[in-house]
Amino acid sequence: VDEQVPAGGIGELGEFALIAAVTKRLPQGGAVLLGPGDDAAVLRAPDGRVVASTDLLLENRHFRRNWSSAYDIGRRGAAANLADIVAMGAVPTALLVGLAAPADLPVSWVLELVDGLRDECLVVSASVAGGDVSSGDLVTVAITALGDLQGRPAVTRAGARPGDQVVLAGRVGWAAAGLAVLARGFRSPRVLVEAHRRPDPPYALGPTLAAAGATAMCDVSDGLVQDLGHIARASGVCIEIHRSALHMTDALRDVGNALNADPYDWVLAGGDDHALVATLPADVEPPVGCVVIGAVTDGSGVLVDDRAYGGPGGHDHFR
Amino acid sequence: VDEQVPAGGIGELGEFALIAAVTKRLPQGGAVLLGPGDDAAVLRAPDGRVVASTDLLLENRHFRRNWSSAYDIGRRGAAANLADIVAMGAVPTALLVGLAAPADLPVSWVLELVDGLRDECLVVSASVAGGDVSSGDLVTVAITALGDLQGRPAVTRAGARPGDQVVLAGRVGWAAAGLAVLARGFRSPRVLVEAHRRPDPPYALGPTLAAAGATAMCDVSDGLVQDLGHIARASGVCIEIHRSALHMTDALRDVGNALNADPYDWVLAGGDDHALVATLPADVEPPVGCVVIGAVTDGSGVLVDDRAYGGPGGHDHFR
Repeated sequence: VDEQVPAGGIGELGEFALIAAVTKRLPQGGAVLLGPGDDAAVLRAPDGRVVASTDLLLENRHFRRNWSSAYDIGRRGAAANLADIVAMGAVPTALLVGLAAPADLPVSWVLELVDGLRDECLVVSASVAGGDVSSGDLVTVAITALGDLQGRPAVTRAGARPGDQVVLAGRVGWAAAGLAVLARGFRSPRVLVEAHRRPDPPYALGPTLAAAGATAMCDVSDGLVQDLGHIARASGVCIEIHRSALHMTDALRDVGNALNADPYDWVLAGGDDHALVATLPADVEPPVGCVVIGAVTDGSGVLVDDRAYGGPGGHDHFR
Repeated sequence: VDEQVPAGGIGELGEFALIAAVTKRLPQGGAVLLGPGDDAAVLRAPDGRVVASTDLLLENRHFRRNWSSAYDIGRRGAAANLADIVAMGAVPTALLVGLAAPADLPVSWVLELVDGLRDECLVVSASVAGGDVSSGDLVTVAITALGDLQGRPAVTRAGARPGDQVVLAGRVGWAAAGLAVLARGFRSPRVLVEAHRRPDPPYALGPTLAAAGATAMCDVSDGLVQDLGHIARASGVCIEIHRSALHMTDALRDVGNALNADPYDWVLAGGDDHALVATLPADVEPPVGCVVIGAVTDGSGVLVDDRAYGGPGGHDHFR
């Protein structure tokens, strides 16, 4: 936070001064033709199509102000949306952010949130190009991400074919284990707590997998088995994966022992790491950074080591 | 509401069944290459640019479930965002909608909201192309609108030049007067109450004004004087308008008398009608449907009948 940040709440500053303070912290990248401050932003969409995804983050549902800093909430919120864009095989170009917050929320909190959104965007050379602020009793962050397919077909969930290999890029289960650790009041292992606070999606591998000929892809936000189930259902196939192919780190194993939990449940059912899972034709060499975890077969559903997975279900927002 | 709508709350139905029920009600227009159901939507952006705007609507701040039907909240929310797109001179193509709601919110309420969003989109041949649902204590609707500039330059707030004429398209003050009527517990004049419930932005005139050479434009969402102030500030000019040029309907005058209020305060400071104000070079014939209400001069600020407007301020979300 720089020295010019007003000390009070955003209500004291007022809507238009807050927008001006936020906008000053947002450099605009090459994809932005018109940034914040008008009725709408104007973004480049070089190949004549635009990929777009939206998410709502609510205080006490998706984040807690006492568990995460504003900066980390920004990083995490941006990461979740940018991962949706790369999961289509696209390159993210911009975020739009709607923010509702109580008038007594410190100005510094909002600016740190914006810094987090901006810095996660910078990882993929995207920009926060516009938004909206209003008052509300709880902090609410609505994020829309836009991206460019660079001339490639979009990689949907519906193209997996029997015979394809199933590949995973990025870590799975780390964020869920980190959350379990925080929920018990612990702060270590630090690597898992950090994974919850700030996911590290394998952004570059989305377009790379698309260019390699991925037949289906999605990001792991609900849990590996559940997200593979989305691909299986949309494609009309069965997906078979194997525990032995999934990387199990010592940290996950240690926390499993300490909390008397099966660490594979975090790996198979934990969300929020925003790894990428994709299916690739059998004759394609998986790109560096991807691990083959199984294969697509005739049938339906997801099999883990040849059986239906009986562990905890994935995420349903109302259950 | 059709007969197949489940009777219970959305929590009973579950996230994925709710998404399926919503998606079934959403026909996808020609601009949508990939609609709801994947990590992201894919939209056409024929001229290589995309216009994008986002807004958050919160229960008890932007709408009340006992004052407006779900259907009208949908129409109104969509209208506010579509108006931002046409105010750039663009044609709307799609909305993305994030919804948070309590588990006991009736499924029928959500489907009516979606019907309202869809029907307002149909007015401009746009589609609800994607979204997100999650649980929250209050109903929260985050709407992002996308549009296409059809090869024209975007019309920003920054291009007004001394000598330009100032034109208005659409009604102003009606929604604010309707809200004043509702707040006093009345339900008529119906035309004003309806204007609050369901704005009627002059969508087609946005692209028409752009094609006619508008030098600046914005939609009237904060209030006519305040929104003209945005143009004056961004363009570095003064905007002078005249009460006598503003159409005063009998309904507004009658409500002013009944509530002992100056009806010009609604016209000059009332938001939410989503009229369009634009500046046009003096030698351009204003398009049919536009009224000349003043002129751009050297200086700064907004003058009403040669004086600074001393009525109620426009809208600040934190004040």
